[in-house]
Amino acid sequence: MTVSKPSGVITLLTDFGLTDPFVGIMKGVVLERFGQARIVDLTHAIEAQAVDQAGFWLQRSFQWFPPGTVHVAVVDPGVGTAREALAVATSEYYFLAPDNGLLARVLAGDARAEVRRIDVAGLRLSATSTTFHGRDVFAPVAALLAGGRVEFGSLGPVTQPRIRPEIPVVSLANGRVEGRVVAVDRFGNLITDIDENCLAVGSGWTVVIGDARVALRHTYADVALGAGTALINSFGCVEIAVRGGRAAEVFRASIGTPVVAETASPKAVL
Amino acid sequence: MTVSKPSGVITLLTDFGLTDPFVGIMKGVVLERFGQARIVDLTHAIEAQAVDQAGFWLQRSFQWFPPGTVHVAVVDPGVGTAREALAVATSEYYFLAPDNGLLARVLAGDARAEVRRIDVAGLRLSATSTTFHGRDVFAPVAALLAGGRVEFGSLGPVTQPRIRPEIPVVSLANGRVEGRVVAVDRFGNLITDIDENCLAVGSGWTVVIGDARVALRHTYADVALGAGTALINSFGCVEIAVRGGRAAEVFRASIGTPVVAETASPKAVL
Amino acid sequence: MTVSKPSGVITLLTDFGLTDPFVGIMKGVVLERFGQARIVDLTHAIEAQAVDQAGFWLQRSFQWFPPGTVHVAVVDPGVGTAREALAVATSEYYFLAPDNGLLARVLAGDARAEVRRIDVAGLRLSATSTTFHGRDVFAPVAALLAGGRVEFGSLGPVTQPRIRPEIPVVSLANGRVEGRVVAVDRFGNLITDIDENCLAVGSGWTVVIGDARVALRHTYADVALGAGTALINSFGCVEIAVRGGRAAEVFRASIGTPVVAETASPKAVL
Repeated sequence: MTVSKPSGVITLLTDFGLTDPFVGIMKGVVLERFGQARIVDLTHAIEAQAVDQAGFWLQRSFQWFPPGTVHVAVVDPGVGTAREALAVATSEYYFLAPDNGLLARVLAGDARAEVRRIDVAGLRLSATSTTFHGRDVFAPVAALLAGGRVEFGSLGPVTQPRIRPEIPVVSLANGRVEGRVVAVDRFGNLITDIDENCLAVGSGWTVVIGDARVALRHTYADVALGAGTALINSFGCVEIAVRGGRAAEVFRASIGTPVVAETASPKAVL
Repeated sequence: MTVSKPSGVITLLTDFGLTDPFVGIMKGVVLERFGQARIVDLTHAIEAQAVDQAGFWLQRSFQWFPPGTVHVAVVDPGVGTAREALAVATSEYYFLAPDNGLLARVLAGDARAEVRRIDVAGLRLSATSTTFHGRDVFAPVAALLAGGRVEFGSLGPVTQPRIRPEIPVVSLANGRVEGRVVAVDRFGNLITDIDENCLAVGSGWTVVIGDARVALRHTYADVALGAGTALINSFGCVEIAVRGGRAAEVFRASIGTPVVAETASPKAVL
Repeated sequence: MTVSKPSGVITLLTDFGLTDPFVGIMKGVVLERFGQARIVDLTHAIEAQAVDQAGFWLQRSFQWFPPGTVHVAVVDPGVGTAREALAVATSEYYFLAPDNGLLARVLAGDARAEVRRIDVAGLRLSATSTTFHGRDVFAPVAALLAGGRVEFGSLGPVTQPRIRPEIPVVSLANGRVEGRVVAVDRFGNLITDIDENCLAVGSGWTVVIGDARVALRHTYADVALGAGTALINSFGCVEIAVRGGRAAEVFRASIGTPVVAETASPKAVL
């Protein structure tokens, strides 16, 4: 695996919130080890311990950063137990996260990704029973990688991630793609994990949420005020919206609500 | 128009919130094009689509940054429709924003500002129907400008903004200045858009909000605990406060509530 | 007092929130004076005017930054009155804050710290009656210090802080340490200001909060789901948690709630 030269950019995605100084402390630890780091917050408002939501946003965000960026994601219901920390290298990016499925969507998109277990003892990182992993493991490793002070291959042994990807797959038999709501944005729009690529095999798609059915259209402007619609959003996902309203309320949906895309005319993939 | 040399600093002001990774992604796009950018968040908590609130805070903030700073403001109820993107240069700063009135207050303060329409096609920026303008238009242009990779004059043709400023003006006939609440701060203080310069033409001002009348004073400390007062705040605006309390609750006011400053002794402007 | 060379890093801790652009403006003022500053937000969500909460988090955060970092903390119920601004140098860090007790915990930890009153007039900083001290005093002084443009000793005369530390002290007579809840984290855990060092003089500690008593254990995993526990957290403080639940609700506690640690076997300190 040849990986891009580190860009010096580090992103952080956590469920720590911004009320306490946890995120700021992680940045201090990075800057002590690599003073020229440029650190970007992706979000710290992942719902508490919502590993899949974190994985979804990471997958939809990482490619907008310079090649060689180190993406750090820390959302972990298992902290305090014996969770391993993973380091992943794709051809363009590095990822650091707990071994709890957070990287499943990233790994599903790159079969050649190299996965290593971070050797906490070998790297002489702290590892007491009350370790704050973001501060004591992920921040120092991110600084080492982003600053070019350590080779990816030296972080620890090659491993298999404990949890493998589950990604919605189009069923050509009945023209259905099953997914779910993974985020509700500030305007109440429902962002799903159904990728536009899944819909390339058919046309005339309808999106089903609860008892409601809405047609997949091209833009919000195509529908009347107050009406529901579905569209492919700027992240390449099916998104359900209500023009001038809040889809989350109109469709009584929240994170995890099942969503199905249906077409009467599936066609064979070439 | 001779403009300051770019400072390398970019500010961001949006209504995107910090829950989703939209702001982080904009920063990634900037850093991919201009790795040395120093990016500062002004706020991302503008109320959804509150263009005037965004314009007010931009006007009160921009001058605290180094000359040559690129100020990016994205609040746009019209996204998805055919809104143009504007680039503005004053003698000291650059501004990028949708053509929806957001820059009206900035333009009202500088008659010599140069306004250009960002030529999305000419600059070879993405412009699909599902464009995320912050990421696909404003972030790349900000990087180009702040990094000195493009001249301001090359961003697109000179144009007239679609919406022109409406700013409260003092009426010397009756000694009244009409404004409104534009922000409620964390302490419940009501920040209005009545500028101290408007009040230079009279003395003994009283501020009227709903049924209440409060005298304009010099500091909070001049009044009793629990009493209302008005003062010129550190941004040069009339602010209504309750010492030890929340003015927003006491005066049942919120963003948009009309506020009038009155004086019995207006005098002619020289 | 020999202090570390400035690291170029500045941290900010305030009760300004992130809704208004106050924090962004402070950063602009810093960057205008020291363009290479690397500015890190510790938190801006300190409860309004909660000086002690601010002091607690500052004390638990500062040491995770590079030596020579300038830590700026602005939480001040007294703004508008004649509060002085303090500058403190320890052997490794600088601190800037109002003279209202915010630095009490930091000063309690370093008897050799040097305390100076910032000479606002002598440094030619703005000081009108409506001064926004974060912007007009603390940000420029932080930039001067972090950029190495001014010696610490030139900031103003040596002074005594107006408010001296009050820190919970172990009573060997009856084996009790009295403290209080200083923060409630995103998961509802109760963070107290009882330091692990206070508990070194005994064993078999029990933590009392309201009518409840919980044993001090080593990790969350030691107790059953739904049960309460106390542990030393990753900041070296006693923390009260409910495995799989929210301790703040279970124990009806919030910031300020008294907490007592008790041991039946106190022993003499050597």
